[in-house]
Amino acid sequence: MTEQLYKKHEAWSGRFDEPVSELVQRYTASVDFDRRLWRHDIQGSLAHAEMLNHVGILSADDLAAIRAGMEKIVHEIESGQFEWQLALEDVHLNIEARLTALAGDAGKRLHTGRSRNDQVATDIRLWLRDEIDRIVGLLGKLQLALVDVAEKNTDTILPGFTHLQVAQPVVFGHHLLAYVEMFARDAERMLDVRKRVNRLPLGAAALAGTSFPIDRERVARTLGFDAVARNSLDAVSDRDFAIEFSAAASLVMVHISRLSEELIIWMSPRVGFIDLADRFCTGSSIMPQKKNPDVPELARGKTGRVVGHLMGLVTLMKGQPLAYNKDNQEDKEPLFDIADTLVDTLTIFADMAAGIRVKPEAMRAAALQGYATATDLADYLVKRGLPFRDAHEAVARAVKACVERGCDLSDLSVEELRAFSALVGDDAKAVLTLEGSVAARDHVGGTAPNQVRAQVAAARARLGG
Amino acid sequence: MTEQLYKKHEAWSGRFDEPVSELVQRYTASVDFDRRLWRHDIQGSLAHAEMLNHVGILSADDLAAIRAGMEKIVHEIESGQFEWQLALEDVHLNIEARLTALAGDAGKRLHTGRSRNDQVATDIRLWLRDEIDRIVGLLGKLQLALVDVAEKNTDTILPGFTHLQVAQPVVFGHHLLAYVEMFARDAERMLDVRKRVNRLPLGAAALAGTSFPIDRERVARTLGFDAVARNSLDAVSDRDFAIEFSAAASLVMVHISRLSEELIIWMSPRVGFIDLADRFCTGSSIMPQKKNPDVPELARGKTGRVVGHLMGLVTLMKGQPLAYNKDNQEDKEPLFDIADTLVDTLTIFADMAAGIRVKPEAMRAAALQGYATATDLADYLVKRGLPFRDAHEAVARAVKACVERGCDLSDLSVEELRAFSALVGDDAKAVLTLEGSVAARDHVGGTAPNQVRAQVAAARARLGG
Amino acid sequence: MTEQLYKKHEAWSGRFDEPVSELVQRYTASVDFDRRLWRHDIQGSLAHAEMLNHVGILSADDLAAIRAGMEKIVHEIESGQFEWQLALEDVHLNIEARLTALAGDAGKRLHTGRSRNDQVATDIRLWLRDEIDRIVGLLGKLQLALVDVAEKNTDTILPGFTHLQVAQPVVFGHHLLAYVEMFARDAERMLDVRKRVNRLPLGAAALAGTSFPIDRERVARTLGFDAVARNSLDAVSDRDFAIEFSAAASLVMVHISRLSEELIIWMSPRVGFIDLADRFCTGSSIMPQKKNPDVPELARGKTGRVVGHLMGLVTLMKGQPLAYNKDNQEDKEPLFDIADTLVDTLTIFADMAAGIRVKPEAMRAAALQGYATATDLADYLVKRGLPFRDAHEAVARAVKACVERGCDLSDLSVEELRAFSALVGDDAKAVLTLEGSVAARDHVGGTAPNQVRAQVAAARARLGG
Amino acid sequence: MTEQLYKKHEAWSGRFDEPVSELVQRYTASVDFDRRLWRHDIQGSLAHAEMLNHVGILSADDLAAIRAGMEKIVHEIESGQFEWQLALEDVHLNIEARLTALAGDAGKRLHTGRSRNDQVATDIRLWLRDEIDRIVGLLGKLQLALVDVAEKNTDTILPGFTHLQVAQPVVFGHHLLAYVEMFARDAERMLDVRKRVNRLPLGAAALAGTSFPIDRERVARTLGFDAVARNSLDAVSDRDFAIEFSAAASLVMVHISRLSEELIIWMSPRVGFIDLADRFCTGSSIMPQKKNPDVPELARGKTGRVVGHLMGLVTLMKGQPLAYNKDNQEDKEPLFDIADTLVDTLTIFADMAAGIRVKPEAMRAAALQGYATATDLADYLVKRGLPFRDAHEAVARAVKACVERGCDLSDLSVEELRAFSALVGDDAKAVLTLEGSVAARDHVGGTAPNQVRAQVAAARARLGG
Repeated sequence: MTEQLYKKHEAWSGRFDEPVSELVQRYTASVDFDRRLWRHDIQGSLAHAEMLNHVGILSADDLAAIRAGMEKIVHEIESGQFEWQLALEDVHLNIEARLTALAGDAGKRLHTGRSRNDQVATDIRLWLRDEIDRIVGLLGKLQLALVDVAEKNTDTILPGFTHLQVAQPVVFGHHLLAYVEMFARDAERMLDVRKRVNRLPLGAAALAGTSFPIDRERVARTLGFDAVARNSLDAVSDRDFAIEFSAAASLVMVHISRLSEELIIWMSPRVGFIDLADRFCTGSSIMPQKKNPDVPELARGKTGRVVGHLMGLVTLMKGQPLAYNKDNQEDKEPLFDIADTLVDTLTIFADMAAGIRVKPEAMRAAALQGYATATDLADYLVKRGLPFRDAHEAVARAVKACVERGCDLSDLSVEELRAFSALVGDDAKAVLTLEGSVAARDHVGGTAPNQVRAQVAAARARLGG
Repeated sequence: MTEQLYKKHEAWSGRFDEPVSELVQRYTASVDFDRRLWRHDIQGSLAHAEMLNHVGILSADDLAAIRAGMEKIVHEIESGQFEWQLALEDVHLNIEARLTALAGDAGKRLHTGRSRNDQVATDIRLWLRDEIDRIVGLLGKLQLALVDVAEKNTDTILPGFTHLQVAQPVVFGHHLLAYVEMFARDAERMLDVRKRVNRLPLGAAALAGTSFPIDRERVARTLGFDAVARNSLDAVSDRDFAIEFSAAASLVMVHISRLSEELIIWMSPRVGFIDLADRFCTGSSIMPQKKNPDVPELARGKTGRVVGHLMGLVTLMKGQPLAYNKDNQEDKEPLFDIADTLVDTLTIFADMAAGIRVKPEAMRAAALQGYATATDLADYLVKRGLPFRDAHEAVARAVKACVERGCDLSDLSVEELRAFSALVGDDAKAVLTLEGSVAARDHVGGTAPNQVRAQVAAARARLGG
Repeated sequence: MTEQLYKKHEAWSGRFDEPVSELVQRYTASVDFDRRLWRHDIQGSLAHAEMLNHVGILSADDLAAIRAGMEKIVHEIESGQFEWQLALEDVHLNIEARLTALAGDAGKRLHTGRSRNDQVATDIRLWLRDEIDRIVGLLGKLQLALVDVAEKNTDTILPGFTHLQVAQPVVFGHHLLAYVEMFARDAERMLDVRKRVNRLPLGAAALAGTSFPIDRERVARTLGFDAVARNSLDAVSDRDFAIEFSAAASLVMVHISRLSEELIIWMSPRVGFIDLADRFCTGSSIMPQKKNPDVPELARGKTGRVVGHLMGLVTLMKGQPLAYNKDNQEDKEPLFDIADTLVDTLTIFADMAAGIRVKPEAMRAAALQGYATATDLADYLVKRGLPFRDAHEAVARAVKACVERGCDLSDLSVEELRAFSALVGDDAKAVLTLEGSVAARDHVGGTAPNQVRAQVAAARARLGG
Repeated sequence: MTEQLYKKHEAWSGRFDEPVSELVQRYTASVDFDRRLWRHDIQGSLAHAEMLNHVGILSADDLAAIRAGMEKIVHEIESGQFEWQLALEDVHLNIEARLTALAGDAGKRLHTGRSRNDQVATDIRLWLRDEIDRIVGLLGKLQLALVDVAEKNTDTILPGFTHLQVAQPVVFGHHLLAYVEMFARDAERMLDVRKRVNRLPLGAAALAGTSFPIDRERVARTLGFDAVARNSLDAVSDRDFAIEFSAAASLVMVHISRLSEELIIWMSPRVGFIDLADRFCTGSSIMPQKKNPDVPELARGKTGRVVGHLMGLVTLMKGQPLAYNKDNQEDKEPLFDIADTLVDTLTIFADMAAGIRVKPEAMRAAALQGYATATDLADYLVKRGLPFRDAHEAVARAVKACVERGCDLSDLSVEELRAFSALVGDDAKAVLTLEGSVAARDHVGGTAPNQVRAQVAAARARLGG
């Protein structure tokens, strides 16, 4: 009996007249990138073999031979001795061929009741589950790193911006906690994705199930899947989880891009709210004075990479008829790249957070410029009985007068302020201080320092740090 | 005291020297599209007013005046009498201006402790929550409609395809249930999105919270939100929920595009597996014989629309500094269009499912062409002791012989089959029948008719239909 | 003889048993948006009719009747009297039905030798050609508006940034001319797109051409097309031009987004390089002091809209088999929206450029902070014989010393500078001035004021303004 | 004098206190992928050095030393001896450091008057220009390969489809020439892109130009650029060409995806219009009979990859302030991947075209099913005086009668046909033949065999093959 499957240089199988052309072989082979899945491929194969033995399809001897062979293969791959062959197309056939060389007919029996279609779907889910767990862990670390900086800055006042114009004073810790919220949602979303990743396609075989009496629930238990996929056609053709993961990852990167944008603006000399440690920056080949915030810039750029992969994956799946089509092979490289990008970026950002040097004086100076407490004056008038809309208008006119004189609201005397509303009392100027303003926003979600301290504590409790 | 805010033709507020130019007004105004949110805007305002009264900021009389005014406004809008003014920019100011006209100072007091930044975020979440509920309902209806057709076709055999080549026989009900799985995941995902939509931003005010002693939890309860947003800066600048919804919607449309692709192929005369009822088709202005599957084609095309919106929203948010920026106004039109597209498409597909006329003879004829049961013969040999890889190769050579002779595997006699493997017994030909093949795939997720019937029953139980 | 085509409430045509369902009719009809093409539809029909008459297919009387009917229809549409009917699906059938009502059999003869497939492709190309011409004109206006501001600022020095860190001094006119380059490329690209838009599909009929002896070259001449499409299948299914236009439009918006980002940063109080006229800004419903740069923010956001449409159109076309499919109907709304977005945005930006108030003192102050002339000192050392890399390093150390002392390079005495390189001469300090630095970059493309003046003149010559 | 730039393990430059962290170094370094540009980097450096010598900045000895050093470096890289160092960040510093080791101070002088910002922009344009030329060549080869098949099939009739329903008969050569048109447009577009790629950024230095008296026109001539970039800020920050190339490449892939979709459908057994040679197909690991059209499927999938990169690049550039930011480093990997994908895909498709086995009988059988000549009958009636709309309706009713009887139009006798229109004459049945139908479409762009032959000849003339 020939070993045709492993003699691709003659013909793909006994059904073919000529071998795949060399260019086609190179074009269609995936082993260059999918060998990354080897550990999960073996994990899946061992669970499949154990089940085959349990239901009586595979003898105990065969199972033992497969286990021994796989152990040797793990060793070969880990030590770099394993010979990956392009002619064997993918990680699955490479490992199976080696197993057959090591274990003989037992190796040839391993593929009973399964197909590469359900095998690869299982491998990629096992791999992605691990990556999600890693990413969720890193999202937690980044949150904690931000919480650390926030905790030290619950009383550091800077201008809160809307439209990049000075809006109202906030404390820097409050500002950073906004990102903690974003990354917390990211972690939630990743766990929602994980639920749908963690369903077992194995047993779908090519597309219709198999005529062997397999026990899919047993394999699911062995591999830690929450459930088995309920429909075989769907199981081999579903790549929802890849798109869903990419969408969740894109949101992570959108948040990273927003934080990066702010770090870059804050470190620009005219703003000067922070400095990043030298180890996160590089210089210029021509300008000797430069110290550039490379990491946030590059991270902001990498948003495009991840979003691009999301777009690519949606395009990939659009309009595909059931069940498995070769198009689907294109799912892996983007997924690998997304996971690597997130892992690297989150790791480096968690590290960089500790390298942020805050410059409270610059922040305070900026908060004093731009009439940040105008709303407080309007609120003051409301509390004295003026309808909000009228109060808003009175203060708007006062601001205009200040703009024309080139002064701040706090530079006006009580008498001058009273020209804009007779309700201005002697206590009005107190509400125009930065400290008064932030302290007044004292409700859940507000920027009052004690609210921020409470949020820091709550975040630590959630994150276990 | 002037009513400057509603006299935009003079100046935006007392702080401005000139009015907004007409072109700018048209460019920046949103009332043309955001007035769709009027009901949710009023709902949010009433909850806010009720809370203001509860905490002592608003008098009972003012609350009553606001309620009466809003009741009148609802009536005016519903009856088409309400005058929407571009100069008032958006739905919020249009309603507030009218309320002030109706309720006087009470109307001017409504905006106490809030900003349009948190107001619009609240409105859009209220609206989206309703749309998600509607979409989840329609996904259920579509699933049930497919289950109905599946139930009638648990024994209708057609070829299952991979690579659009005949793979193995499956039953048509099983094939349709693959889509039930997809739409079930879509509903799950929508409910996951809903969790993050259903958090209350109101109380964040412009970005920092407010100096009034508001009770955000009370508003959340009144409006049915699960929780309050924990950080005010995040609350006004977060549009994650919009992207997340768009991503989930894109997956719905990817599934619709796949089903559409199959309906179109199935209805193509060379395939002829189904016919769609005339009421879902149109003709040609030039070719008198044409009956075109317009609905699935157009739906397939609409995938691009929804995916495009997703990409637009990600691009929108990329790199935005905190907190609110005017860019965010661009979130609404895509969201509206996505929701409308999903509602229309799901409604029409649920309806169209009942208009699918199945042609079992064409399906069967196709299944008999293309060696659909070759795997069954290989499995047969495995059960007689041949390792799977060797069985695969033996059958491959048998198929090649058939291709050359232009016959099917079942046309070979047992003796002829035996030329490819001595293990072929007299019972071999039984496994080559379509019925035998599908019946053999008798495990969870397999295409055996009794498994499909079980899945139909399970789906009905889940869907309550 | 029935007028079935216009009696869709009975059945689509004599080949159908039942009418299209109401929901399907609404779902598939395009008249709500494609009626915008009415003028181009009539323009194409008249050219077609003229040709039919010229080759002897249509009598002179019929042609006259068609022309008279169309004239009346133009009047009806312009005056708002035309009754658009959803049941007639699209702009083509609406106009044809009305024409037949007005002109009798002549109207029914108009559709000889054409199909809606080639008709709509012709309409959309005629429309897009006009829009491209309009956009190219607006790109020219925007360039001229920027050139105007640049011309007034050929000696206004601000820091050039890389990585948002101070890099080297540049003049503001030079900075603005960078955008002139971008918009000049956009205009070039639009004209390249126009070449491929301006080919005539009419005559392809449904997909294969027609059996009537039509003269396509004549129609092309009448309508001002550069050439006829060479393949009928391609002619009706090609939407390359839509994607290509969207891609060119996306680049326009990317440039707008970059300019907007800078305007927003420049107007932020900490930077304060410019102020935008009040008429391009709005205020806040809560913060009385706010003046927000709404226009650039919204324009930045609209980048997402256009990019999203590009992605939608690519998704639309991906994987479509030949020839025309109903999916293609989805090409129109994004194209309309892109054209409108570009026209509005370019118009408003050209207008806004004149409303930029430059603040030269703030620019100069910023240029004096951040060691902008460090490169000039390195270049000085190179001119005295030091290899560039060594000069770079010497100056880097001088900068570090300044950072530590909190001073600028120009604050160091010649002796102090000499500590970093013995080559520093008494003339060294001259190169550290801003004026010296910009004047030194005196080659094509450099920021020297006389180079910028030359570029201003060259731009005016190109743009005819 | 230290060689600090090449001692990054101590500090980035004399301005820094600590070295870049290892993780940051790995995160920000580009040498792993940008070393691919080495040949173009050296090409640019040599042209720069020659110009520096020409204008008197670099001595003849230094130039000679640089040339000798570069020659050695070329040899080292080609032979695999060159040691690429991550610590040296990118291809530029790796080569410069090695040059300095080989050529001493001459090497350090090479960077005079330039920066990495303009250097990398030059490299990538030189590289992309070469790739575009290669791609245009391959587009020509693919067109010729399709023309070859078209030429053999100018009389092979198959059904033309719209909506995947039988529309009208066309000849297979005509159908293939539709793709020739698409790829011809692609080549046009690539050449349009090339115009904007082929402008020299070198001389922009960091962003403002340089204080050295460089001769940019000379460098442009040496390197074959059409022009120099007119604005230095634009020159270093412009990535339009990358986006424009990606958009043109996306259209190539959209066309590949459409052709692939058709090849896959045509090879599906129910359609069976063609067979692909075995060397372009692979089998199944489980189903012995399978022969799958892997190449077109994978190519269809790769559309997503290229479109994704386009989206990524647009996202990358959106909202970036001038001038160079580190984000831009992310432009290279997608460009490399797009170019590789196009080169591989076009090569393999040109090769595969020759491996298409046409099955004319299956095509003909399909054309005879579906009333493909109904339009011809309507046209016949028009020529006998019936307005087209009435003719359309008469034939529609005839088709319906046939559908009900289960026969074709040509099965009806002249008398039976006459029941639908009294204008049917004895010659009517001639127009119902496939040959008559295609031959009648005898105008430019039509499917008549002699028109197709003319288009084949014209294509050969254009393509020089």
